[in-house]
Order: sequence, then C-alpha cells, then structure tokens
Amino acid sequence: MSQVNVGICGLGTVGGGTFNLLRRNAAVIADRAGARIEVTHIATRSDNPAYDTSGVRMSRDVFDVARDPEIDILVESMGGTDIAFDLVMEAIQQGKHIVTANKALIAERGNEIFAAAGARGVAVAYEAAVAGGIPIIQTLRDGLSANKINWLAGIINGTGNFILTEMRDKGKAFASVLKEAQKLGYAEADPTFDVEGIDAAHKLVILASIAFGIPLQFDRIYTQGISRIKNEDVLHAGELGFVIKHLGIARRGEKGIELRVHPTLIPKDRLIAKVDGVMNAVMIEGDAVGPTLYFGAGAGAEPTASSVIANLIEIAHQKDVAPEARSSYLGVPMDKLKDTPVVDIEDCETSFYLRFTAADKPGVLNKITQLLSNAELSVEAIQQKEPISGSAEATIVMVTHKAVESELRKVVSSLEKLDVITSKVVYIRVEDLD
Amino acid sequence: MSQVNVGICGLGTVGGGTFNLLRRNAAVIADRAGARIEVTHIATRSDNPAYDTSGVRMSRDVFDVARDPEIDILVESMGGTDIAFDLVMEAIQQGKHIVTANKALIAERGNEIFAAAGARGVAVAYEAAVAGGIPIIQTLRDGLSANKINWLAGIINGTGNFILTEMRDKGKAFASVLKEAQKLGYAEADPTFDVEGIDAAHKLVILASIAFGIPLQFDRIYTQGISRIKNEDVLHAGELGFVIKHLGIARRGEKGIELRVHPTLIPKDRLIAKVDGVMNAVMIEGDAVGPTLYFGAGAGAEPTASSVIANLIEIAHQKDVAPEARSSYLGVPMDKLKDTPVVDIEDCETSFYLRFTAADKPGVLNKITQLLSNAELSVEAIQQKEPISGSAEATIVMVTHKAVESELRKVVSSLEKLDVITSKVVYIRVEDLD
Repeated sequence: MSQVNVGICGLGTVGGGTFNLLRRNAAVIADRAGARIEVTHIATRSDNPAYDTSGVRMSRDVFDVARDPEIDILVESMGGTDIAFDLVMEAIQQGKHIVTANKALIAERGNEIFAAAGARGVAVAYEAAVAGGIPIIQTLRDGLSANKINWLAGIINGTGNFILTEMRDKGKAFASVLKEAQKLGYAEADPTFDVEGIDAAHKLVILASIAFGIPLQFDRIYTQGISRIKNEDVLHAGELGFVIKHLGIARRGEKGIELRVHPTLIPKDRLIAKVDGVMNAVMIEGDAVGPTLYFGAGAGAEPTASSVIANLIEIAHQKDVAPEARSSYLGVPMDKLKDTPVVDIEDCETSFYLRFTAADKPGVLNKITQLLSNAELSVEAIQQKEPISGSAEATIVMVTHKAVESELRKVVSSLEKLDVITSKVVYIRVEDLD
Repeated sequence: MSQVNVGICGLGTVGGGTFNLLRRNAAVIADRAGARIEVTHIATRSDNPAYDTSGVRMSRDVFDVARDPEIDILVESMGGTDIAFDLVMEAIQQGKHIVTANKALIAERGNEIFAAAGARGVAVAYEAAVAGGIPIIQTLRDGLSANKINWLAGIINGTGNFILTEMRDKGKAFASVLKEAQKLGYAEADPTFDVEGIDAAHKLVILASIAFGIPLQFDRIYTQGISRIKNEDVLHAGELGFVIKHLGIARRGEKGIELRVHPTLIPKDRLIAKVDGVMNAVMIEGDAVGPTLYFGAGAGAEPTASSVIANLIEIAHQKDVAPEARSSYLGVPMDKLKDTPVVDIEDCETSFYLRFTAADKPGVLNKITQLLSNAELSVEAIQQKEPISGSAEATIVMVTHKAVESELRKVVSSLEKLDVITSKVVYIRVEDLD
C-alpha cells in the first residue's frame, strides 16, 4: 500500500483533532483512501504533550512544512488570513496539495489562492471551512451539481444558534447567555466574529460562490449580528408562530444574487426551525432536487477533523490525476465564474417583523394602519399588546407582506415621526423558506 | 470543450427525467463537468412524444446501447434485476461506465457487478438508488470517510412515510390512506414493495454495506412493513411522546451488524421525527462527526435525475483516470470488505412498545407487572386506558427498557397465556436515536 505524507501547520483544535483522528481510525482510513495517510511533519508554536508526536518531524516555522520535499499535502490549521495566506501560496508553489478549515482565508483570499493552485495544478480542499462536520461543500458542489440553485439558507454559526436557543428556552437576555456560552467554551473571549455575524458571513460567501458560480465576494455581503435581539422579540415571534434564527441566506433573484446574514423570523414548523443549540444546518433548494437540508455539528475538534480527513482521503485518491479530473475549486473553473451582480440590501425583498410602542389611546392603531396603507405596505398580522399596568404605552408588533427593504425603511422612518409612536421601530426580516 | 456520450436505457420516470434535466441545465452542467454531456443513444420499448429525441439514435434493444462504440456512459433506468443485470454486465464488458438508480439491482446483485466493473476498471455509480435526490451515497462514502460509523437510521421510503403521516394527522386507517396514496401517484397499484418494506430494505442494504465495509447482503436483512400498524398505536405512541416512523436501521454492535427495517417508535422531539409526508431523511452517526441528518425528496423524476446527473458529471471528470483514483464502489475495495456477522433479529436489543387488552378488574395490573418482573423486563412507562363504556376490557400500553428480542418474545408469549389478558399482544420496536 502506498503512503501519502501530510504536514500539519498548527496543532490547535483543528490540527490536533486531525492528528488524533488520523491515528485512531488509521485502518479504515487507509482502506478508504487506498493509501496510508501519515502525518510526517508538524509545525507548532509550542510542543503539546497531549499529542504523541514521536517519529514526526517537528518544526517551529510553518514554512518548513511547505518546503518539506517529503510532504504531499499540507493541512493549514493555524487560522488567520496573513501568514496562513503566505503559507498556502508558498505550499502551492512547492506543488503541495492543500487542505484547510480556514473560512476567513477562503472567503477573503480564495480567488487568489484558487488561481495560483489552478496554475500549479494542485488541489485545494476546504470542506471543514463551512458547517464543520457536515459535508456541505461536497454536497453543494458535487452532489447537487445538476441543479440550478434557487436559494440556500443556513444556521452556520453554532455560537449564535446556542445563544438564540437559550434566550428562547430560558427567557435569558443576550448578554447573560453570551457569558454562559463563553464559560462553556462555545464562544470566544472576544465574541465579535460569532455574534456580529462575521463568521457566518465568511461561510455564506463560500456557499454562495459555489451555488451560483460567482467569485468569492466577502466585501459584498450584508452582515448583521444577533447582539441587538431582545427577549421580547423572541417572545413575540413565538406568539406569531415564528422562531428567530441567525441565518446566512443566498438567493438568486431577478436583480442578481442576494447575500445576507441577519437574524430572521422563520415559521416554527420548518425543519430548520427545529435545529437548536450549537448545531448547524443548511437548507439548499435546487431546481431539480427541490428543498433539501443537511444537519450536524458545525464546530469542534472531531467534527472538523472529520471533514479535513475526508479531504485528505479524496486527495489521496486524486493526487496524481490531471487537474481536470477533479471538481473545480468552486464547482466551475475560475474563468467560468459569472459577474452576476450582488444585490444591495436596500433592494432585497422580504417580509418584516416590526415592534414599537404607541400611546394607548383611541385612534392610534388607525393612524398606524393609515400610514401603512398610504405606503402600500400590507400587513399579514398585527397585535397590540395589553399595556403593562400603570403604563400609558402599548407594544405593537406586526408582520408585513413582502416589501423592498428601502421602502420598508421609509415606512419605519415615517412611523417614528408619528407623534403617537413612543419608541424606535425595531424591524427584523422574515423568511418563509418554503 | 470535450464531449461525453451517454446512452439511456429506459425512458420512464428516471430516464426521461434525466434526459430532460440534462437539456434544461446543459450550460451549467457542462461548466461543472468540464465537458458537454450529450445523450446520443436511447433504448426504449416505445417512442414517447413527450421527449424531443431528434438527433438521438433510438433503439428498441437496450443491448444496442451497451454495444454502441460511441457511448462512454450507460444509464440503466429500466428497473428490475434480470435484464438490467445482463445489460449492466454486458456494458461493463464493453468498457462502459455505468450509472443506475436501480436499488434492487445494486442491493441484490451489486457484489457481482462491482467485481466485474473492478476487473474491467470502469465506474459504477448509483447515487439515485438511495433516497432519490439526497446525495447520501456520496455523503456516507466520501463525506464521512474519516469516521467509524456507529449507526444510521433512515426514512427511506416516501410512500410509507406519507401513509404513516396521514394516519397520524387525519386519523385514517392504513387501507384508506393507501388508496389515497395510490390516487396521488405516491404508491404503485401493487404496493407490496413499499408497504412491506422491501424497497426500504434494498436501500438499507446499500447504506449498511458502505457504512460498515461489509458485502451487500439482501438475504440477511430483517424486514417488516407498515401494513399492520393500527391507528390506535399511532395515537397511543403520540400520547407517550413518540411518533411511529418506518425506519431502516443499521447499527454496529458487539455481536455484529444489525440490519432491520420496521415500524419504530421514536421520540417526538428528534429532528427525524419531524420529517413528514413523502420526504426522506437519513441520520448517520459517526464516531468523529457525531449525529448528522440529510433530508430531501426520495423519489420523483427530477430529484432522481439530479442524482443520476451528479454521477454523470463525476464520471465525466474521472472517466480517464486510473481506477484507484476513484472512490471504491462501496467505500473500500471489494477484497477489503469484512465478514462482520449480521445479527439475527432475535438477538437485537431495543426497547419495545406493547399493547393488549385485559380484563378490567382489580389485581390485573399486578399480575402483569409480576410477570414482567419475573422475566426481568423493566418498564419505562405503562398506561391503562379507561375501558370504553360497557366494556369489561381495558387497553394497556407500555414502553419497556431495552431487552433482547428473543426475551421479549417469550414475555409476549407468557402474557398472552395469562387468563386476564384478552387479546394478542402487539409489539413495536422503540429507538431512542440519541
């Protein structure tokens, strides 16, 4: 049996998990790969006694791995987009195949990386970059390759989903659940990437590029996090038959491709509405296959390693084939990617949930509905909540029919100018996902 | 751009759907395949004016396609296991790659087909054979290839799932829903394959073979259909917090591999419990990835064509590579398949739901629990239903803890001998899927 030599750069969660799993399941991995997959070189900033690296060449400098003539495949598991980029580009020049779990690297610099890899004829695989252990890249790129994708929507950040689930189930506020998530290791000390949607945006950019055959365009995505979601919105959404999920949504429309990450009300009875806690799920609708859904762990050492090693096994099979015998990095060759425009968020059309407070006196609701009617914004559901005793204000929540976002914003602005409305108007997008 | 020539044998739902979808999405399919995929030869028993086959060579004899020197890939979409087998074997001898949606063919004769194809160095792809449009073969074989699979469980027959869903939601009896399903085209005139679990068994055999690296063993699977499920069981299950689904289950245990298709009570809050109507879903638990789930349409012209064409695109990429550059047919080479035993159903261990009627008089429940206690069968939940007015009989339902099936059957037999028990004891297996 032949042997494939792997170098791992970075022995943190991903690199360490990959090293461990390769050893634990070595026999079945070899049978499936048709080759022994051996880690022969590891670069790490400091030795970690948790891993038995005897017999493995150890380096402090990741570039030693990229230039190691023994290495067939380099696993980039250090993270970041600067040194990781230079490392991957160097390894490509050295003719190494690349496996990475680094969503930021692919989303922000993938176009350059794939161009260089294509010129050099090496594979770059990144299954673990999106939705951890769920083989979503392979599914979208190869499994659904006969389809024109209409849209996809994913819960692709487990931290955010955990926080929203806890807010709903335990009635706790965002800040308190975030602290809990940090204690449990689900959220970083600096949670910005997760709770402000940047991590989800990285992943969505990758999925959208494959789905629609467009270049990676991280600068074009609309990103809104969950940090401003209030418990009362979670509660009202529930009463209206919805659940709030932080979704990455990519949709092909007449004006181009919508690319957006934001909190979203979705009907409670959708399968994806039932994906709770840290789990991930992605819905994909293709013109032939119809709606499909893929569910699993989106993070963690072993699920991520599962995807990294699936890539290693695939490359072990294909490492000596002509490049055209492999799937293209993004499903179609880089020179076949289309310049389909990405739609500005102002031009996107969704339904909306609105919440505000109004003076609790006769005629108020009429003023509001008159304003909506003049703006030609039709309402699917409206509820006026009993004012808290002693208060002269009532909370009003509503769900609109579909409207273009710029029009909705005008309505929000007009509502806020009404003298009977006593608060800012909170609005959250609503998706049917049908 | 190069061209790949495809011959289609059988222009029914699958063949016709494939022909149509290849034309409709020709441009994107060519970009993804790196080649034009052209249907150049079709064999069909009678011309179908629904398809514009101008420019396509037409034959009555499917073997003409197998022997057509122009053809690179043969799509077997005729069904059955006799002529289809001879056709596929002939095409393999002619050096054609094969794509089939025929689950019976792969489940019953796949070992022979893969041996022949391996010797000849051609690809045999069968994504559409299991769960229609869900890319479950690719997911299990390639996407989760780093895992030792612990178990999988699937709703892999849409007809059965539709019937059980309607029985639950509308309170209708099996026979009446079956008629409705036949009217809607969800069930065949002869529904045996669907409602007696044979179709699901074919699919499960294929999944289990890939999951556990064992030969295809259709003769070793335990198969029980849904035709004897009563509305009262659906109702009682619901009251106990369960839903009844017809599942194919494959599990690796100490005694070997469990391979079974049967109605199953599963907890209502599991994601797979919420998969209703004709939809399919497969849960797979791997040692690294943990629980995952894949959901989509399990049948129909377009979802099936989606999978057939995904295979065509893959083969278009790989048609000229060395055979070892492709994944093995069943994930590992045929000579690496293991002879892990398949466990007899009598030796499988699950929880059980029991239902029977008993005389409605003092001491009856005590007699029953005494018998269970003597048999060391512990009970998780037991309910005695109020007797219908005027009746001297009460219905008793219970859910047991885990027990070996042969032991459970002894208990059932003892219960039926108790003079206070006035009916047969119905038992249905219960799975936690946790």
